[in-house]
Amino acid sequence: MQMGNSSTFLDAARELLGDRGLITDPELVEPWLTDWRGRYHGAALALASPATTDEVAALVRLAREHGVPIVPQGGNSGMCGGATPDPSGEAILLSLRRMDAVRDFDPALRRITCDAGLVLQTLHERVAEEGLRFPLTLGGKGSATVGGLVATNAGGTQVLRHGTMRALVLGLEVVTPLGEVFSDLAPLKKDNRGFDLKQLFIGSEGTLGIVTGATLALVPAVAERVVAWVGLDSLENARALLLTCQGRLRGELEGFEVLPEHCLAAVVDHLPDARRPLGEPQPWNALVELAVEDKDKVADAREALETVLADAFERGLIADAVIAANEGQAEDFWQLRDTIAPAEKALGPAVQHDISVPEAQMPAFLASIAPEIERDYPGTKAVGFGHLGDGNIHFHVLAPPEAAPAWVEEEGKEISAQVYERVTEWGGSISAEHGIGQAKLGELARLADPARLDLLRRIKAALDPDGLLNPGKLVTPTP
Amino acid sequence: MQMGNSSTFLDAARELLGDRGLITDPELVEPWLTDWRGRYHGAALALASPATTDEVAALVRLAREHGVPIVPQGGNSGMCGGATPDPSGEAILLSLRRMDAVRDFDPALRRITCDAGLVLQTLHERVAEEGLRFPLTLGGKGSATVGGLVATNAGGTQVLRHGTMRALVLGLEVVTPLGEVFSDLAPLKKDNRGFDLKQLFIGSEGTLGIVTGATLALVPAVAERVVAWVGLDSLENARALLLTCQGRLRGELEGFEVLPEHCLAAVVDHLPDARRPLGEPQPWNALVELAVEDKDKVADAREALETVLADAFERGLIADAVIAANEGQAEDFWQLRDTIAPAEKALGPAVQHDISVPEAQMPAFLASIAPEIERDYPGTKAVGFGHLGDGNIHFHVLAPPEAAPAWVEEEGKEISAQVYERVTEWGGSISAEHGIGQAKLGELARLADPARLDLLRRIKAALDPDGLLNPGKLVTPTP
Repeated sequence: MQMGNSSTFLDAARELLGDRGLITDPELVEPWLTDWRGRYHGAALALASPATTDEVAALVRLAREHGVPIVPQGGNSGMCGGATPDPSGEAILLSLRRMDAVRDFDPALRRITCDAGLVLQTLHERVAEEGLRFPLTLGGKGSATVGGLVATNAGGTQVLRHGTMRALVLGLEVVTPLGEVFSDLAPLKKDNRGFDLKQLFIGSEGTLGIVTGATLALVPAVAERVVAWVGLDSLENARALLLTCQGRLRGELEGFEVLPEHCLAAVVDHLPDARRPLGEPQPWNALVELAVEDKDKVADAREALETVLADAFERGLIADAVIAANEGQAEDFWQLRDTIAPAEKALGPAVQHDISVPEAQMPAFLASIAPEIERDYPGTKAVGFGHLGDGNIHFHVLAPPEAAPAWVEEEGKEISAQVYERVTEWGGSISAEHGIGQAKLGELARLADPARLDLLRRIKAALDPDGLLNPGKLVTPTP
Repeated sequence: MQMGNSSTFLDAARELLGDRGLITDPELVEPWLTDWRGRYHGAALALASPATTDEVAALVRLAREHGVPIVPQGGNSGMCGGATPDPSGEAILLSLRRMDAVRDFDPALRRITCDAGLVLQTLHERVAEEGLRFPLTLGGKGSATVGGLVATNAGGTQVLRHGTMRALVLGLEVVTPLGEVFSDLAPLKKDNRGFDLKQLFIGSEGTLGIVTGATLALVPAVAERVVAWVGLDSLENARALLLTCQGRLRGELEGFEVLPEHCLAAVVDHLPDARRPLGEPQPWNALVELAVEDKDKVADAREALETVLADAFERGLIADAVIAANEGQAEDFWQLRDTIAPAEKALGPAVQHDISVPEAQMPAFLASIAPEIERDYPGTKAVGFGHLGDGNIHFHVLAPPEAAPAWVEEEGKEISAQVYERVTEWGGSISAEHGIGQAKLGELARLADPARLDLLRRIKAALDPDGLLNPGKLVTPTP
């Protein structure tokens, strides 16, 4: 890119977006050039913050005229560097955060249409005012935006009952790489006018289009949740308990998370006031949540869960269990689960893998991979925890105690390659919910089935022929 | 196409598929060259019936080498001529019907993986043996195949609760236009390895790939259904009743169909033993069904529906209602609904439109379009019936009593063009559940938003660069 050229582009962009919409002051741009975990760093010509969909479309057309790549960004809270530009400084960073309006909210139809920049937590609060909820949440809810959640097909701890973002998106508005507005916000329940383009944009990580608005499905607010902490001998038993819960607590079962003793011990050491929910440490723990919408049915739900747990104890499936006596205790249980990441960080470097395998095979997979890694890389500790109900485990490998900081980039990389190879052999996914971004770009190209990769590349080339939209993310052009 | 060329192709195809897999006898091919309703007629080089996915892939590669177009066909029961070749006779018809095996059935996980050629009714029967059901049904269930249902994203009368085919497909196996096998049958609940390609093939009507297998979601069998016939003054009231049912009968509400008096009268005249469920004719009728899986909850469900209907009567929302006393009566009620098509056919020619508008606007839309058409085309009768809960109405315009058979192709075509224009103005879809096929190809090109059409065309060109897969269906190349 010629300097003269980029300055012409920036002048035109300033004219289009105004001073508020085009930020070139390095101090103001800087914070958005690094992902929230500080793993990816980039550079950019400027930070564009359009106020409307039409401004986004006009900016895309302008960037196209000047051959300027565009990196869309929501809350900058992604896990794979998908919203961080490359270091060349040739791209413009396009923030959707200024577009954060609720466009239309219909509580009777349980539907909300909003701009892409609306923050998840704000969305939660807004719909709660009408006795409703948007049933997707995750750690970054204070910064994650609707557009980013759509672009990454985000998951979280409620997928078991409500699905990922894909299941909750009823309509989309997208600016295409050619700068046209594709609007499919009209909430038609049935529409067979050709391929479902909306589905293509969900999870495309800003490489096929820029999400500018979405219509989302809502569900009734929860009157009360019933949360149990369960101790078990093995992950097989946790899975057997899960199947029992799914059979007998159908409809209300919303969460089923597992964590090994290693994770719980780390959390208890790390959190000042944390207490173990059960007296004796158990090899495995399961966190089970029922979310009950109708307050008249809370007692029934609690009783049903008690019966399931009592039966499971009788059958020798579980070693111990406790149901939270109140919301405060339920919150304490969840805090143990949600503190795994910082507790582990305090133990030293680790490489993390967000993987899935067919649900039924998760216990066998973990029993195979963890000892393999610990054997091949002496001193490491391999643990899996997370969303057993979705066949999605966060598989973390902690560095040996004496490891140098460079461990992650050296031995850690080798370990990750091995983990992804095994996952692929088991018919699983190297990215269950975090996406590909720049973090797994090479591994996807290396390990994906050639037919899949060819289709991804053809679609990318067809929709974005000049490769200007979020280049270097998700899929690379055919070599 | 040169005759010499096609004979070389057929020789190679016979070598590949054997005599059973390649049928050239015109008498045996003929029945598949016309759609089941006799509206579209075509010609073909031969009828290929591969026995395996690998044979399908090899045939596609072979056809590609020889430049032979391929028209995939399942049960030949589509509504838009999507499985009928053009009259040139250049294409080969590719039937999936020989591939009808159940590959894997896991009742505990409520999941079945089968070949594309499995017939819907056979699927229903197979899963019923294990106390499960596949919750999608339609008139053509005795011939419709899984592959065809996937390719057209089929709907039916259970969409209100269970969604269209898209919601029930967990995995797919597809032969691409290049003759590669894309397999995504592994039932991963979470997989964010790029664009969800599976979603792209669902509803693509054989223009992007040939569905050869699918993994489908199952639900528990119904212990008993509770079915009510309701008389109402208006479609607005039917919609108000629907919203009440959705709020208060959540979960079990599976069907909500509406039909005007005109349809019911035609059915009662047509069916020898048919009886009106209610004493007095009402302007509108609603058929409401609860499907109860747990037999201990049938009485509760019936009571809940009784209460809802009694309240609706008190509020003046409904004029009269009766709940079927037993399964036989429930079946009678449904027969009235399912006989609309033949009853209407007996009245004379008609043009039919499978359309959707945003659900809330369906009553207003129908109140606007029906008088408009009857005014502009004197002597016609315009009626709408069907899936009110999905915002999907089958809008039929009956010819004037004295109309000539050519009416459908002349005035009928004009009427359809006007209906589709109005639907588009109202933000609706010219194809809610039947697809585009060849029937609506021109209307989609004429009325679709240019941004949508451009995306459809780019994707088609990217995946099928030579345009050999089901040409002349769904989307035409850029003119």
